[in-house]
Amino acid sequence: MVNKREALELHSKNPGKISVDPSVNIEGKEDLALVYTPGVAEPCRKISEDREKAYEYTSKGNLVAVVSDGSAVLGLGDTGPEAAMPVMEGKANLMKKFGKVDGFPEVIDVETGDEIIEHVERMEPNYGAINLEDIKAPRCFKVEEALKESLDIPVFHDDQHGTAIVVGAALRNALELAGKDLEDVRIVISGAGAAGIAVAKYLLSAGARKIVPVDSSGILRSDDENSYKADLAERTLASEEQGDLADAMKDADVFIGLSAPGIVSKEMVESMADKAIVMALANPEPEILPEDAREAGALITATGRSDFDNQVNNSLAFPGVFRGALDVKASDINEEMKIAASEAIRKFIEPEKDKIVPETLDRELAMEIADRVSDAAVDSGVARE
Amino acid sequence: MVNKREALELHSKNPGKISVDPSVNIEGKEDLALVYTPGVAEPCRKISEDREKAYEYTSKGNLVAVVSDGSAVLGLGDTGPEAAMPVMEGKANLMKKFGKVDGFPEVIDVETGDEIIEHVERMEPNYGAINLEDIKAPRCFKVEEALKESLDIPVFHDDQHGTAIVVGAALRNALELAGKDLEDVRIVISGAGAAGIAVAKYLLSAGARKIVPVDSSGILRSDDENSYKADLAERTLASEEQGDLADAMKDADVFIGLSAPGIVSKEMVESMADKAIVMALANPEPEILPEDAREAGALITATGRSDFDNQVNNSLAFPGVFRGALDVKASDINEEMKIAASEAIRKFIEPEKDKIVPETLDRELAMEIADRVSDAAVDSGVARE
Repeated sequence: MVNKREALELHSKNPGKISVDPSVNIEGKEDLALVYTPGVAEPCRKISEDREKAYEYTSKGNLVAVVSDGSAVLGLGDTGPEAAMPVMEGKANLMKKFGKVDGFPEVIDVETGDEIIEHVERMEPNYGAINLEDIKAPRCFKVEEALKESLDIPVFHDDQHGTAIVVGAALRNALELAGKDLEDVRIVISGAGAAGIAVAKYLLSAGARKIVPVDSSGILRSDDENSYKADLAERTLASEEQGDLADAMKDADVFIGLSAPGIVSKEMVESMADKAIVMALANPEPEILPEDAREAGALITATGRSDFDNQVNNSLAFPGVFRGALDVKASDINEEMKIAASEAIRKFIEPEKDKIVPETLDRELAMEIADRVSDAAVDSGVARE
Repeated sequence: MVNKREALELHSKNPGKISVDPSVNIEGKEDLALVYTPGVAEPCRKISEDREKAYEYTSKGNLVAVVSDGSAVLGLGDTGPEAAMPVMEGKANLMKKFGKVDGFPEVIDVETGDEIIEHVERMEPNYGAINLEDIKAPRCFKVEEALKESLDIPVFHDDQHGTAIVVGAALRNALELAGKDLEDVRIVISGAGAAGIAVAKYLLSAGARKIVPVDSSGILRSDDENSYKADLAERTLASEEQGDLADAMKDADVFIGLSAPGIVSKEMVESMADKAIVMALANPEPEILPEDAREAGALITATGRSDFDNQVNNSLAFPGVFRGALDVKASDINEEMKIAASEAIRKFIEPEKDKIVPETLDRELAMEIADRVSDAAVDSGVARE
């Protein structure tokens, strides 16, 4: 387990985890005259004639806003924007380290989804892409839909799509090892927040036919007042089944947890089918610890954490996804690009039980994802160069 | 003169002038577990209990937003936000280089001052201070007043106060060389935008009694429909005099131009008093070239540009001003802190005719300003530590 004191020390050292640095060094008066007055007037003039030139003369094209209202921070809930900052800085840090992307935190003090939409629309001129993060469901769905519609730059809610991309890759590799097919397996998805719903939709579009979505009240119902949950219930086994999590898990081949710490017991795992796959991805505390799941008979286990094997974590995907989108000035990150990213992750390794996804720290992976995502953007017509 | 092609090449190389970098390096899985999941949860939790802890565990306390709506970019006017980006990046670059401040551009797509106010209020959790920039007058006055009132972090419109701080220092040194007193000299201020009005107010508060403010329609009038101009006219010789710029400049000891290129003729300078001081600060093209002003009899000349002597430019002040404010977690940048900054600049050198202000590239200057500004913040009760 991670030492909390050590984590606090690391965060308080500088403090924080990012730094904004000159990319052009000023050594003498000549440099200053080019970087600042009067030289700066020339790029300003060029861009005022054609704002697309912002990509040519400013940092815009490599800048990604990591935007959060702090309404769904990790497993901590609605902490407010200040407390979301360490997560956004962490993402910015990883974006540069693995994807050479200039990510920047934008935690904002707003009350509603409409205010997030308005705020992000106003910041569009500054950025090449938008990463939405830790915004609670169903607010996040509406925000993302609206912004994808109104902005000319890509909008990507990483809690949804980054998770779906990585879970999709991990599950396909795990099923290969278990000798099972996606079309046939019973998949319990615990958690109907942003990540749970996105993963379910992604797996449905990939061919899964026996998904049982569950939230804290049990198997989802088609009459749920949350329309996103009701829609999902309608499209899955939840339209036929009722019960709690334990009921759902009986004879399940796959458990995917995107919910809450410790809610899965050993007994539940014991009730699963042979060669069960248990991906307990709640952060920072998983639904069940991997050693407990294996003791209860699971063939393959995974968590979202870097201190266990099989880290199924968004950080595998987002640096490469943004790198690929920015490289071709994509106007969107569409389904084709997400599938390309997931396939790049899946194929990057020869899967083994303790290695169903690549190492998070592999830089070559981000570049491989970027290449595949760029290609998919071009092929699907959203690339601008 | 600066080579325009060279300026464009420099801006398009990376492209842009800033880079967002990790300040904590991730080398192994242990680092990742501290920087990201699960370690990141601990600082999030601490801040959710007490949001002041954001200063302890995040980059907030050293981050300064350089905010512009692009409504008054250099001498180019209302270019829109994209075209303002090179200026904001230039400021961010200089903030780090000279003040060790993490400045970050925030160009925004808004229509009104109220929208700027709303946007900046929402971004407060992310930042330790706000630098307003290139916002047209009188919008900028209202925006700054409202934000100083509503935010708990310092708000500083550099076009106003940075200019006033540096012009104040330069003018005092120039007057010392000319053997004249601020109280006695006739000072023409050309330009009644953000900078012109702020400089006039600053000099009034410093003891100047014979200021003649002029805009493109001539000497300001007390019945101007712009209340900021009318107020200033009321408090200066404009309440007694009428006429154009040429009328105003007769027998003037000091010309301060914050207006438009080439509007001052040699004849106007010839009509000034003996030992005239001509500060032609319009960017990128001054009101009159320094060699022309000297040929017409000026004792001391200055411009805003780095490619002439006596660069009277905000870049002398803002890196140190923000460093000083951030160092003591100031809640404001008040008059006392501005005066302290101006005095630090003035006293930093032994003035000569071709050196009425320090070199812009002097890092020690920024640290000296920072120390004086921090002290003034503590003495005036706006420091939080």
